[in-house]
Amino acid sequence: MQLLIKNGRIITATDDYYGDIIVSAGQVTAIGRKLSVPSAKVIDAEGLLVMPGGIDPHVHLDMPFMGTFSSDTHETGTRAALHGGTTTVIDFVLQQQGHSLREALDEWNERAYGTAVGDYSFHMAVTDFNANTKAEIRTMIEQEGITSFKTFMAYKGALMIDDRQMTGLMQEVKQHGGMVTVHATNGDVIDYLVAKHLAEGKTTPLYHYLSQPEVTEAEAAARFTDLANYTGCPGYIVHLTCEGALNAVRNATRRNQKVFVETCIQYLLLDASKYDKGFESAKWVMSPPLREAKDQETLWAGINQNLVNIVATDHCPFMWQQKLMGEHDFSKIPNGHPAIENRMELLFSEGVNKNRISLNKFVEVACTNPAKIFGMFPRKGTIAIGSDADIILFDPNEKHTIAAATHHMNVDYSAYEGWEVTGKVKTVLLRGEIAIDKGECLVPRGYGQFIKRNKVNGKI
Amino acid sequence: MQLLIKNGRIITATDDYYGDIIVSAGQVTAIGRKLSVPSAKVIDAEGLLVMPGGIDPHVHLDMPFMGTFSSDTHETGTRAALHGGTTTVIDFVLQQQGHSLREALDEWNERAYGTAVGDYSFHMAVTDFNANTKAEIRTMIEQEGITSFKTFMAYKGALMIDDRQMTGLMQEVKQHGGMVTVHATNGDVIDYLVAKHLAEGKTTPLYHYLSQPEVTEAEAAARFTDLANYTGCPGYIVHLTCEGALNAVRNATRRNQKVFVETCIQYLLLDASKYDKGFESAKWVMSPPLREAKDQETLWAGINQNLVNIVATDHCPFMWQQKLMGEHDFSKIPNGHPAIENRMELLFSEGVNKNRISLNKFVEVACTNPAKIFGMFPRKGTIAIGSDADIILFDPNEKHTIAAATHHMNVDYSAYEGWEVTGKVKTVLLRGEIAIDKGECLVPRGYGQFIKRNKVNGKI
Amino acid sequence: MQLLIKNGRIITATDDYYGDIIVSAGQVTAIGRKLSVPSAKVIDAEGLLVMPGGIDPHVHLDMPFMGTFSSDTHETGTRAALHGGTTTVIDFVLQQQGHSLREALDEWNERAYGTAVGDYSFHMAVTDFNANTKAEIRTMIEQEGITSFKTFMAYKGALMIDDRQMTGLMQEVKQHGGMVTVHATNGDVIDYLVAKHLAEGKTTPLYHYLSQPEVTEAEAAARFTDLANYTGCPGYIVHLTCEGALNAVRNATRRNQKVFVETCIQYLLLDASKYDKGFESAKWVMSPPLREAKDQETLWAGINQNLVNIVATDHCPFMWQQKLMGEHDFSKIPNGHPAIENRMELLFSEGVNKNRISLNKFVEVACTNPAKIFGMFPRKGTIAIGSDADIILFDPNEKHTIAAATHHMNVDYSAYEGWEVTGKVKTVLLRGEIAIDKGECLVPRGYGQFIKRNKVNGKI
Amino acid sequence: MQLLIKNGRIITATDDYYGDIIVSAGQVTAIGRKLSVPSAKVIDAEGLLVMPGGIDPHVHLDMPFMGTFSSDTHETGTRAALHGGTTTVIDFVLQQQGHSLREALDEWNERAYGTAVGDYSFHMAVTDFNANTKAEIRTMIEQEGITSFKTFMAYKGALMIDDRQMTGLMQEVKQHGGMVTVHATNGDVIDYLVAKHLAEGKTTPLYHYLSQPEVTEAEAAARFTDLANYTGCPGYIVHLTCEGALNAVRNATRRNQKVFVETCIQYLLLDASKYDKGFESAKWVMSPPLREAKDQETLWAGINQNLVNIVATDHCPFMWQQKLMGEHDFSKIPNGHPAIENRMELLFSEGVNKNRISLNKFVEVACTNPAKIFGMFPRKGTIAIGSDADIILFDPNEKHTIAAATHHMNVDYSAYEGWEVTGKVKTVLLRGEIAIDKGECLVPRGYGQFIKRNKVNGKI
Repeated sequence: MQLLIKNGRIITATDDYYGDIIVSAGQVTAIGRKLSVPSAKVIDAEGLLVMPGGIDPHVHLDMPFMGTFSSDTHETGTRAALHGGTTTVIDFVLQQQGHSLREALDEWNERAYGTAVGDYSFHMAVTDFNANTKAEIRTMIEQEGITSFKTFMAYKGALMIDDRQMTGLMQEVKQHGGMVTVHATNGDVIDYLVAKHLAEGKTTPLYHYLSQPEVTEAEAAARFTDLANYTGCPGYIVHLTCEGALNAVRNATRRNQKVFVETCIQYLLLDASKYDKGFESAKWVMSPPLREAKDQETLWAGINQNLVNIVATDHCPFMWQQKLMGEHDFSKIPNGHPAIENRMELLFSEGVNKNRISLNKFVEVACTNPAKIFGMFPRKGTIAIGSDADIILFDPNEKHTIAAATHHMNVDYSAYEGWEVTGKVKTVLLRGEIAIDKGECLVPRGYGQFIKRNKVNGKI
Repeated sequence: MQLLIKNGRIITATDDYYGDIIVSAGQVTAIGRKLSVPSAKVIDAEGLLVMPGGIDPHVHLDMPFMGTFSSDTHETGTRAALHGGTTTVIDFVLQQQGHSLREALDEWNERAYGTAVGDYSFHMAVTDFNANTKAEIRTMIEQEGITSFKTFMAYKGALMIDDRQMTGLMQEVKQHGGMVTVHATNGDVIDYLVAKHLAEGKTTPLYHYLSQPEVTEAEAAARFTDLANYTGCPGYIVHLTCEGALNAVRNATRRNQKVFVETCIQYLLLDASKYDKGFESAKWVMSPPLREAKDQETLWAGINQNLVNIVATDHCPFMWQQKLMGEHDFSKIPNGHPAIENRMELLFSEGVNKNRISLNKFVEVACTNPAKIFGMFPRKGTIAIGSDADIILFDPNEKHTIAAATHHMNVDYSAYEGWEVTGKVKTVLLRGEIAIDKGECLVPRGYGQFIKRNKVNGKI
Repeated sequence: MQLLIKNGRIITATDDYYGDIIVSAGQVTAIGRKLSVPSAKVIDAEGLLVMPGGIDPHVHLDMPFMGTFSSDTHETGTRAALHGGTTTVIDFVLQQQGHSLREALDEWNERAYGTAVGDYSFHMAVTDFNANTKAEIRTMIEQEGITSFKTFMAYKGALMIDDRQMTGLMQEVKQHGGMVTVHATNGDVIDYLVAKHLAEGKTTPLYHYLSQPEVTEAEAAARFTDLANYTGCPGYIVHLTCEGALNAVRNATRRNQKVFVETCIQYLLLDASKYDKGFESAKWVMSPPLREAKDQETLWAGINQNLVNIVATDHCPFMWQQKLMGEHDFSKIPNGHPAIENRMELLFSEGVNKNRISLNKFVEVACTNPAKIFGMFPRKGTIAIGSDADIILFDPNEKHTIAAATHHMNVDYSAYEGWEVTGKVKTVLLRGEIAIDKGECLVPRGYGQFIKRNKVNGKI
Repeated sequence: MQLLIKNGRIITATDDYYGDIIVSAGQVTAIGRKLSVPSAKVIDAEGLLVMPGGIDPHVHLDMPFMGTFSSDTHETGTRAALHGGTTTVIDFVLQQQGHSLREALDEWNERAYGTAVGDYSFHMAVTDFNANTKAEIRTMIEQEGITSFKTFMAYKGALMIDDRQMTGLMQEVKQHGGMVTVHATNGDVIDYLVAKHLAEGKTTPLYHYLSQPEVTEAEAAARFTDLANYTGCPGYIVHLTCEGALNAVRNATRRNQKVFVETCIQYLLLDASKYDKGFESAKWVMSPPLREAKDQETLWAGINQNLVNIVATDHCPFMWQQKLMGEHDFSKIPNGHPAIENRMELLFSEGVNKNRISLNKFVEVACTNPAKIFGMFPRKGTIAIGSDADIILFDPNEKHTIAAATHHMNVDYSAYEGWEVTGKVKTVLLRGEIAIDKGECLVPRGYGQFIKRNKVNGKI
């Protein structure tokens, strides 16, 4: 079936114009003024923005973590994402120390395959880089289409690799055209502070925050950037939250280096005052923690400086009951918060609507850059001839309020409860199918496809 | 008449796809797969790149300078630009000290109106900011569509304004939604060094170079950036050439500031070894002068860091006879070199072809950013529905050699004589007309239109 | 006559020990344990600190400025200095534009010679650098012992030189072994802001402060540092007040540059809240103005980082009646405040006593560095064999309160009225004579000598 | 017995004058002009510089390392030091992982006590920071007079502590008034590169150098500085060699931080071209390795910027036979080179004599700052009343040539063989005894005393 989207204001990372779009066989096949296709189903986009489907390159679905699982499965998570205008996500496969990448991939495939509603891909988190792992890198890139390798500079004994492994991994990944991404915080210092606080009987969520001071992130961001520069491997810092860490990237520009930077919607909008709410603060226990007003300013500026390239979520929801695991010990609170559904609308409302970023920039950081940096372009991330018809129709003026009662994520609280948002996703197309319309999800469990990704060369 | 461009590989600052383009009434009206328009003239783009017409935002046509005029008129200059794939240029109106902006605009209009072959706009160079000038700023922006104001921190007594005027101008321009651009070199220090060298009998072109050391540009770039930050006025540095100056911009990112940066094709490709050729070096006497290899590296990196936003030319050609004015005194050599026709092909050949920048980045810095930063978007700078059909068909593989004998600029030498280039402009459309084809210009003198520009808000 | 100072705790920039000092013929001739000299007058220093006499390298005595004269003459000013433990001052000779350095020196000699009570030297302020002035530089250094040349980047039309003159001056001064010092603020921007504020009817002292924002000083400090680096001339920034300006110096360390920095006691202790007092704020109208708490922190840190080398005063007192000249126009308030008498005690009380700096550092920045940097060492600035016996006996524990009623400066208000100080100058020797004892000045008008200074090489 | 040193030119970190010195009971008791003591032994210092004995705060004597022992014992090493004008050294006690600080101290005391010829103190190297070690810190500081704690960010499994231990150590040391010092190189990256090079069959000394690129030191210096800033603990970087690392310290000045920096004589004088000599290069295998000319420039500048505070040696000699342990594997070459005897003369010759640093600066970085920063002042490090009479008489003009054949270190090669030096140590006093005269050592084995050190507060 063909679709004809009429009279929308079409926005890409570059363009902004009025026009009609023809979708055939799941792809965009024509764009123009006053197009007509006799047989096509017509969607009226009058008064609406027509934009590429969002891509959230940082989500954790059904993830085993801290003795439990994140509460959104690939089904519920990608469905909620669709409701919020995000048509593709990149989830993280976590290698288990002592095991292979392959084993981990198999496990994740099992959970995601046939269950996802929206499209998805995987990053491979390398938690144990050794001779065996090294041999798997090329296969992952060339056969599996997994071209990005996540590393943790924190969570020693579970996920963390040391700088020796980091250097080796970078050299291997570089050779095969991949990219290394990083959770850049100094795990040793954090471990020290966590232990110290607990030993002092300081067990509330506030001490989660105080155990991860800015220096732990600034230091690690600088160290990762140094190693990326030394090895020449393309590098990407996930969930960057603060001035100190962005300054590490800014400093590196002086040696002609380019490191990609992702922040997440919560670091732009929320701050550490959330940790003053007793145990309720557990809702926002995540790593890194929320920061200060100065850091929010830095991140918005960083977007306009083109130094912050992507706004993701690090979506990793846990039910309140799960959060209670840490009622008497902040270090046992499962880390993460739900945002996969809210990202696009919040970023539009606080960014575009409040004139902090342009419409094009909105599409760039929420849709296009994730596709380009992670090798899904031009199939994903834009509205152009031949691209997948992953398209959202967005009312820029409709106001609504975020609430757990109405969201679609499988989690019983909202981190943004009561937040009034201007701008609403009305209709979502995924590969030419109407996935969301009038608040209903019209595509079934299993509709989501795994997206193999291409090599990237660090230049976009 | 309608045009149908078939089977090209269409490149914008974001996109990269194969498709057909329909042009009607001078605009792009449809893009798609296998389009057909019975009545249209068909242009076969098989095997070619189809890109937006280039925009060169820094040219000096028919400019009175140093006792002579730059040798390309608005006619010859814009025609040569078209041959090289540049469909729109922005020329500089120079206020004369003691006179009004209006008088200068009238004079420039007289020279350009009805003569230009390609489209053009004007920057207004404010060389005497006083109460009268101040009152004209708003008019220029709102009535004349001239939204960018050029300043000179050099050429004391002729073009230079002091920091007092600069601050006042910035505050006025900011208020009305314009932008201040700058020739950022410390004129006082340069004047001192010129006088010193001449007094010492050092009169060859080499001393032109030695009279403008890196510090003169780095210092001025920092000072301008400081003032732009203080006033909050959007700022833009023209023809930035060196590491020291780009570092001033990089440092400013730490205070969350964004300053736009333009470099020129010559600073990416040529270096100061050109000043070792006796008086022949006069061909490359321009201000700032060519720099070092390290600076070229910095500029290429700056493009990929998104800190260098535009590649222009500062096209300002003089006949060899004119250059001879300074045979015995480098300070009398008319400053400038011809490049308006070569920019696009050189940047493609040395940038894209040598894998220093991506194809999208090529379009971004040569076409789209000039349009966006200077308020001509979306009319100019992209290939999208409703935009002017300023389109080039480009053969990425054709090799040819630059030579004065074959170029179209009105100047009797080439600064790139003998340079072998990969990639050639084959056909150029301007507002839907075939302006260039098979090396012939098909539109007449006077075809070029003046483009009124919009306010910019410093966010693109 | 010989003196024997017994049992003091002797402090130099390096040392800290108990001992006796023998003074003969105006110089220190022996230091040791249990010394005895039968004929000597004995001064008991038990319980006291024995330190070098202070050197204040930045004072303005009897200076014609803004249509009046600073209210301390060389007599009253140096006498007050002695009361406060400062035995030598360096005053500024101001060249008049259009006139020679020689004429200015003659004028200053006339005022100072035979009237000063304490020792003094002169900086030469070059306000008009031209071929004639250039020819005088060497004479000043080699014949007059004036080796430091002050420049103003502000006060256009009166004192300011442009960057052309600055560069020329630096090259000349460097050649003869001198040093260029600078009042580093961007005069053009300040002039603009002053005029703007006045035009808006903003005439109170607060607008003096708001007309000299941090950027005006940070920019000029960076520019001066750039030019000093380019020319290779030793450079010194007077009265540096703020983080932005010190950061310019810190940044320059990356290119292996050393620039000397002076701050003044008021910038360490007072802040801009003084400008909230209506016209009473005129007491603290000086240039640069007082800054913020963050800047005080930076300056104290800068001392311990060895990047701020000297604490001076910029003593330039005006009677309240003189300050009233600007009652209706802040730009007519004579700039300056009285501090020559208070510097040593305030710095001790707030620095040493509050554990911000060590005792040795106190001597270094208040006594020794001024002597070394300005070529009076080892005659002045230390307690060592053969040095002038310029020595103060200081009770580190005695508390007292600063008040105009009791100070000796010729000015009818105190900028530190009511400030409780711990530490008091008890006895002051100048060239072996007891100049101050029990609050009385025991040396006559004219006792002060002009100190010829040596070439400096920028390394101390 | 009393000594009378006549007519010398006495130099301290501050002063420079001619005078006589009386030494009684091992201390300086008087300094003056034309002193006479009937009973005293007179030493004629006419034409000589009289300076404090040098202090080398970084030596490894009789150290178990890499399966062998450094070849100078406390006897031979301190005796050689005396020959070279260094009267006090600070050696490193190395805790063994799994054992206590006390055990290590006992072992070192056993080796040093009664054998040292010159005075010595100990740093305590903490290689295993745990609850037990933590409890020992206070005792070390308060009872043993060991106030500085050395850490290694390299040599994993042997000496290295992780950032968790580092943070904990800093917090404990700070609390008791001590200081943390660091071997700042990224051990993980080095280990990776060593293993990689060996796996590739690259086994010559050149690969020692290539396994420790500048980034490994720059990164670690930045990380250490970050942690020192976070904890507020006084920090000191040993053997800093390169621009990247010094820039970390320079950057930290922007946040008002002061970190002390030591370089070593070899990093000022030798460069990596030494690694081009086949296995002979093993003579200069040390960690960090020698660097480039740019780094030497940076270090000299750093001294004059007061950012490099001390010039030490990291003296750690091995016989050629020991070096041969690594003939087929650079990683088995015992790290270190002999310099304890050459430091003072080389620094004078290359620093003072070549006008890179002043005489006062020479004394400051070689004698006084080590005493001050490490809590031995005023007993050591200066010539002042009451200080130990550790004094050298130095002929600034005598030329001689360094050679293994004539040096006194227990090592069969010289790292500076054939180096012509201007300036020679003629006579050395240690606590008032003539320790060296006419090339003979006049004090016996065991003359050296252990120097208990005081708390430092990070301000000197």
